Amino acid sequence: MTDQPSPALAAAMQEVSTAVEAALDRLLPRPEGATARLAEAMRYACLGGGKRLRALLVVASADIFNVPRERSIRVAAAIEMLHAYSLVHDDLPCMDDDDLRRGKPTVHKAFDEATAVLVGDALQAEAFAVLAHSETHPDSSIRAELVLALAVYSGASGMVGGQAIDLAAEKRGAAGTPLNFKEIVELQNLKTGMLICFSAEAGAVLAGADILEKMALDEYAIDLGLAFQIADDLLVHESSAAEVGKAVGKDAAAGKATFVGLLGLEQARTKARALTNSAKSRVSAQFGPSSVVLQELAEFVITRRS
Amino acid sequence: MTDQPSPALAAAMQEVSTAVEAALDRLLPRPEGATARLAEAMRYACLGGGKRLRALLVVASADIFNVPRERSIRVAAAIEMLHAYSLVHDDLPCMDDDDLRRGKPTVHKAFDEATAVLVGDALQAEAFAVLAHSETHPDSSIRAELVLALAVYSGASGMVGGQAIDLAAEKRGAAGTPLNFKEIVELQNLKTGMLICFSAEAGAVLAGADILEKMALDEYAIDLGLAFQIADDLLVHESSAAEVGKAVGKDAAAGKATFVGLLGLEQARTKARALTNSAKSRVSAQFGPSSVVLQELAEFVITRRS
Repeated sequence: MTDQPSPALAAAMQEVSTAVEAALDRLLPRPEGATARLAEAMRYACLGGGKRLRALLVVASADIFNVPRERSIRVAAAIEMLHAYSLVHDDLPCMDDDDLRRGKPTVHKAFDEATAVLVGDALQAEAFAVLAHSETHPDSSIRAELVLALAVYSGASGMVGGQAIDLAAEKRGAAGTPLNFKEIVELQNLKTGMLICFSAEAGAVLAGADILEKMALDEYAIDLGLAFQIADDLLVHESSAAEVGKAVGKDAAAGKATFVGLLGLEQARTKARALTNSAKSRVSAQFGPSSVVLQELAEFVITRRS
Repeated sequence: MTDQPSPALAAAMQEVSTAVEAALDRLLPRPEGATARLAEAMRYACLGGGKRLRALLVVASADIFNVPRERSIRVAAAIEMLHAYSLVHDDLPCMDDDDLRRGKPTVHKAFDEATAVLVGDALQAEAFAVLAHSETHPDSSIRAELVLALAVYSGASGMVGGQAIDLAAEKRGAAGTPLNFKEIVELQNLKTGMLICFSAEAGAVLAGADILEKMALDEYAIDLGLAFQIADDLLVHESSAAEVGKAVGKDAAAGKATFVGLLGLEQARTKARALTNSAKSRVSAQFGPSSVVLQELAEFVITRRS
């Protein structure tokens, strides 16, 4: 096991990060005129940070089909806007009430709460505007398919639905009846899994790929998303154990069900490894060596140290 | 002048309200499973209320071109979802902090603040899902055009931008430098005018109408939207003068610039009348008698009493 991305993966991550950052800078509104502060806050929320995991999934899956990069990068930027909106709203005082995100003050701290609500709202709209624009793909049926998929995956039956379940779960946890394994898997699939699925599928949609190819990417992403969450829980568990000498992290202390809490350390590690292997074999069987970045990404997701 | 809609307009309003209500009921998620509470709150925010002005604009403009009603009603429902999301977020404690909306507790009062944030987020996504779905129009280029227009008109350079200017304007007002006439017109054009424009244009987009026809509806809607806001200010002014015997409403008391405050009572009335006449003549010149509902709506907007 290694805790560094392979050279090929590291190069792809760097390349996509740089290209998506440039695209976001170009696509986000300029901070000028009467709405300068809103634009500035949107840029603060989107630029200069994050692993760009979703962007890399879009581009790596699109690369399998030789989709022109200028198209996949636009879709990647749209998904990163959507993801950024969800983080800004999740951090609000009435939600998770977080003051820091990636070491920087959250948007409602750096600006104010009303601006944070509006930033999220505007970023969501902007994501759909980017997808619907003819520069994303000349074929309008592909643009409409992208919009519909993102809307469904990010809405009440997807990401936002998962967030609602998470809120209810915290109350249940505080009342002493945290989620069971099946429920936490459903929560994570909605809250983070569906946007990860959309990211991996988007390359196939851009290419007008067939249903089997889309399914392979979809199944890859479901396993990857869950492996990612379990790995996150393991990292939190290990860092809190190391840092403060106790065996439970913040989430567990708050009565929140975690994979580590439910499965135990060893089983959680085994489960993450099994999901990673399954994700890798799914795309290697369908696409062969052209899916090497996706395969290495799945490996990295459970071996990274942050 | 009359304060009742004409029989033709009243019939159209009733018909569209009923059809849009049924469409919203069909399109919004059912309150079941783990996300039942979110779905229930989305329905609470969207169903059973409001003038459905935007829905009527969509349907009346689409009727000019004989667009099938099942298409225009879907677009109308999407816009009403978008409008409902904007109201739910505007009412939040960190924004306008309103406890009541149309006589009912606002969503964050009836449910809670976190749910209100998520309701708005999910309604926005749902609006785009409806527009992008093939049932809205068989031609994907029309669906993509609708999505792009709604995203641009409702985002940072449209509705959300207007809301951001409004927040800044309140601070300026409190500091003794309220907006001037030109600035308040810009604010209102963004905050409410652009969604009204989209509503009126949507019928022409659904019909694949030509640029002159779209422009006529656009210009009609710009005048109508401004007339609507001035009429709103006049209503607030008159009701607060009548109810509490003072000549200024809540907005003016909060240092917020209003059309009545800036223009005076008589000039505000004259301006609203001129805008209404201009809106009516714009569509009657372009479309003749087939635009009668739009014409009567423009008249009603400034003569209504609530």
